[in-house]
Amino acid sequence: MPDTKATATLLIHCPDQVGIVAAITDFLHKNHGNILSLDQHVDEEANRFFMRVAWDLAEFMIPKEKIDDYFATLVGKRFDMQWRLHFSEKKPRLALFVSKKSHCLYDILQRYMSGEWQVEIPLIISNHENLGYIAKRFDIDYHVFPINPENKALQEKKEIELLQKHDIDLIILARYMQILSKDFIDAYPNKIINIHHSFLPAFKGGRPYHSAHRRGVKLIGATSHYVTEDLDEGPIIAQDVKKVTHKETVSDLIRKGQDLEKIVLSQAIWLEIQQKVLPYKNKTVVFD
Amino acid sequence: MPDTKATATLLIHCPDQVGIVAAITDFLHKNHGNILSLDQHVDEEANRFFMRVAWDLAEFMIPKEKIDDYFATLVGKRFDMQWRLHFSEKKPRLALFVSKKSHCLYDILQRYMSGEWQVEIPLIISNHENLGYIAKRFDIDYHVFPINPENKALQEKKEIELLQKHDIDLIILARYMQILSKDFIDAYPNKIINIHHSFLPAFKGGRPYHSAHRRGVKLIGATSHYVTEDLDEGPIIAQDVKKVTHKETVSDLIRKGQDLEKIVLSQAIWLEIQQKVLPYKNKTVVFD
Amino acid sequence: MPDTKATATLLIHCPDQVGIVAAITDFLHKNHGNILSLDQHVDEEANRFFMRVAWDLAEFMIPKEKIDDYFATLVGKRFDMQWRLHFSEKKPRLALFVSKKSHCLYDILQRYMSGEWQVEIPLIISNHENLGYIAKRFDIDYHVFPINPENKALQEKKEIELLQKHDIDLIILARYMQILSKDFIDAYPNKIINIHHSFLPAFKGGRPYHSAHRRGVKLIGATSHYVTEDLDEGPIIAQDVKKVTHKETVSDLIRKGQDLEKIVLSQAIWLEIQQKVLPYKNKTVVFD
Amino acid sequence: MPDTKATATLLIHCPDQVGIVAAITDFLHKNHGNILSLDQHVDEEANRFFMRVAWDLAEFMIPKEKIDDYFATLVGKRFDMQWRLHFSEKKPRLALFVSKKSHCLYDILQRYMSGEWQVEIPLIISNHENLGYIAKRFDIDYHVFPINPENKALQEKKEIELLQKHDIDLIILARYMQILSKDFIDAYPNKIINIHHSFLPAFKGGRPYHSAHRRGVKLIGATSHYVTEDLDEGPIIAQDVKKVTHKETVSDLIRKGQDLEKIVLSQAIWLEIQQKVLPYKNKTVVFD
Repeated sequence: MPDTKATATLLIHCPDQVGIVAAITDFLHKNHGNILSLDQHVDEEANRFFMRVAWDLAEFMIPKEKIDDYFATLVGKRFDMQWRLHFSEKKPRLALFVSKKSHCLYDILQRYMSGEWQVEIPLIISNHENLGYIAKRFDIDYHVFPINPENKALQEKKEIELLQKHDIDLIILARYMQILSKDFIDAYPNKIINIHHSFLPAFKGGRPYHSAHRRGVKLIGATSHYVTEDLDEGPIIAQDVKKVTHKETVSDLIRKGQDLEKIVLSQAIWLEIQQKVLPYKNKTVVFD
Repeated sequence: MPDTKATATLLIHCPDQVGIVAAITDFLHKNHGNILSLDQHVDEEANRFFMRVAWDLAEFMIPKEKIDDYFATLVGKRFDMQWRLHFSEKKPRLALFVSKKSHCLYDILQRYMSGEWQVEIPLIISNHENLGYIAKRFDIDYHVFPINPENKALQEKKEIELLQKHDIDLIILARYMQILSKDFIDAYPNKIINIHHSFLPAFKGGRPYHSAHRRGVKLIGATSHYVTEDLDEGPIIAQDVKKVTHKETVSDLIRKGQDLEKIVLSQAIWLEIQQKVLPYKNKTVVFD
Repeated sequence: MPDTKATATLLIHCPDQVGIVAAITDFLHKNHGNILSLDQHVDEEANRFFMRVAWDLAEFMIPKEKIDDYFATLVGKRFDMQWRLHFSEKKPRLALFVSKKSHCLYDILQRYMSGEWQVEIPLIISNHENLGYIAKRFDIDYHVFPINPENKALQEKKEIELLQKHDIDLIILARYMQILSKDFIDAYPNKIINIHHSFLPAFKGGRPYHSAHRRGVKLIGATSHYVTEDLDEGPIIAQDVKKVTHKETVSDLIRKGQDLEKIVLSQAIWLEIQQKVLPYKNKTVVFD
Repeated sequence: MPDTKATATLLIHCPDQVGIVAAITDFLHKNHGNILSLDQHVDEEANRFFMRVAWDLAEFMIPKEKIDDYFATLVGKRFDMQWRLHFSEKKPRLALFVSKKSHCLYDILQRYMSGEWQVEIPLIISNHENLGYIAKRFDIDYHVFPINPENKALQEKKEIELLQKHDIDLIILARYMQILSKDFIDAYPNKIINIHHSFLPAFKGGRPYHSAHRRGVKLIGATSHYVTEDLDEGPIIAQDVKKVTHKETVSDLIRKGQDLEKIVLSQAIWLEIQQKVLPYKNKTVVFD
């Protein structure tokens, strides 16, 4: 059962210095915001402070639409902070990108339909017709944008227009087998989550299960990460592995790996829609 | 390399209410205590607030010996808190209790000798002579207290005297095969850590690997926990499991299980000496 | 891509004695059956021999319909064997039993629809209407048999008739929240697979996540097993666990546990339809 | 308690063809060798057959010293086999190579001293004096061979002489921080086991924990493998991973990683001394 309390969440980072926690908790406390959870982290190497704080809006004196402004004036600017403010009542809007494999798609849709996730999924985009029948069964719009080297720039432009029209907050590459252009990625910085079918940084690029089989590893993995311009190099959100043996063929690795892929991708989405992931440079702080 | 900064750590719990975090951070900030890490947790069911906060003592205005008193007056009593104050410069003093198996003992001693852990281990206690030769090799006092139903109360009394003489903070049952009496446990509440060779609450009591084999489980486990009067029912600190197959005999389970036991026990000790575990009733909050 | 070679598989067990492997391999070799895989296991405690052997039928001299008879005469009776013969071309026919939760159902249906599993799923049975809409979307018959203490015997009788009419080989309890009667179980011995939402034998019976939360375990688990008359005591096929922390509520455990449940159930089904599980008394031999 | 039955084990590989299993089991059966365990594997891609078979020598008609010859004549040559014959009564003789870190060394010595492993460890070799005191405590010869670019060839020559003098079967690099030359490796093909502190092939080469921390992975790993001329590219025997978080510094990764390293290395040694690993080209078949 989803929590129905109206809450706000701040994800903050700034240069580390004395007094940040006290300043933030004082700001919330003075304005009658009961802190529900508070997590902080200092990256001493980068001298960077990170925080996630959630509070109850019931008694909070500052109106929702002014919180951002008040926080900037009273705390944020003083500490040279960057932050993201989220309200629990706002359901994130997701677009799913798929190609031909259905396991991640079904996994996501089951969570959506059963109410496990409080999100909206208004559309699915694909470069192939193949999975359209699933979208149809779930009554979700399915848009096909075939991609080739010639039309890629134009097709991506159309995709972005569609995403904007639907107010999409988060793009999920659910085994989407196309590389997005820098322009596309720049339009959604740290808002595109991919699943790569290996324990990165091992087996970057194509056909990782074939490479894993050739190398004779005893573990296969999956990695969910934000998409950046550098392929398979974006900030990692979640990873997991499974044991394999010499008995298993490439087909077995693919089959077992799909179980990893769908769970690790959905785990990353869950963290993201709970506002628990703070990417910074090439890494993530995960407040779970 | 151990951190040489002088720090203090508070482990706190109290009934949950508004303003606790702000009060604590304010207390630290006003007295120039730079917060190094802060973790909090609210158990909504129990309506209980838990916190771990560590700060730099370098600029802290309150002298070390007065912190406890000041904190009580200015914060603790107001919120009906219970707390534990620890200084990084204080090395925890451990006593190891062993019987005949050496795997946990070696694992602990290797961490101690190599400087992985900043602790003192002035003595080892056993109900058998068997492992005395190891203690000798490591130049650690080894005291044998044979236990039988008749002498148990007396022997435990002597053990407690010895522990007190050596200012022992923490007792580690490193596969010690005797059940401690209520009196003994009461002398060291939440200061005795045991390793049980199953994933509790499955296979409580004796010969858990035999029971696991008989049941045909596909996983064996180990559980480290604080010792309480109820056998194998104390607050769990850490647990882990390993896969097993039908091919493995009871001896195989015992052999593989020992790898789990030593790692899970040492993990619990590490958490404890880092002041990261807060037991409350029958459960633990682990700030890792 | 499914293997299209026509193969036969024998799952055998018998009292252990000298010469069994040689007798079986000789039988196959002499009749031009090329062995594709052979796994054997001796349970020394029970003095029982177990084997799984698969061979290519292409050159095999004994016609398919006579293999069982020939094997009995030439090998099986001599060693007092029990065995099960399976042909790769025979697709197992599954019936799914569900109640209100959809995660296992979707997981199974995705594997079925995508061709990951070579099975037939002609029908879904439930004690509730709730998941009928999913069956409809997948064009699978959905039969509702509401169960109460009065009608249970009768309803189960009707269910069995339906299962027999559809030549069902294997019954999957995909979070079906009813206890089957002894009569029902006797009709499908070792042919009903259940998923229990704990690492058995811990937390048998109802509401295991609530019990796990109350106990403060650091791991939650799931267990797939054959259903026997003794509730939650049947031979275990597969188990897995996930780490949890003090931060997680019962709802979190339920949510995370569902990921375990669906994967562990599907893993058991996969093993079963590959003819890789041999239950014997209260345990299983899993030839994976 | 170690098994005291006198047994023989054959590890075999050869081009795959019809009738191999039957030929081997027939050879054993006719000569009254009761098969205790039999595992086989066919690598269809490489068209290669692999087998491990162990049998009881009690009634076996062929004298131990003639088994190799008889097997060659009656079976091995016919199928163009390569094989390794091992007798349970022969204790493998291990040499340990170490540098400055003690965790793997203690882990191995504890298993040796407690009788968990039936091996002989007559000597420890190091490029540093540091761990000599441990060898002394355990009454094991400790030989220091300082290595620099100038003396490397000569020192390795002396090491090999020492190893040969002690009839060493297996060399364990227990966090030995020197790269062995091709000549050294050629003297002990597939008889040198190393532990690398990452989940290979990720983070090959030096300082893998620093690289892992920089990349922001959520898992760290360890890999035990046979040493070949290509650094960190040898056949993998065992791998495992542990979860890490953004909170953990490089020191934390090193500390946690050591737990993985020692367990994964000892797991590989265990498999090897049980004659359960068959390296072929760049991969291993592990009959566990």
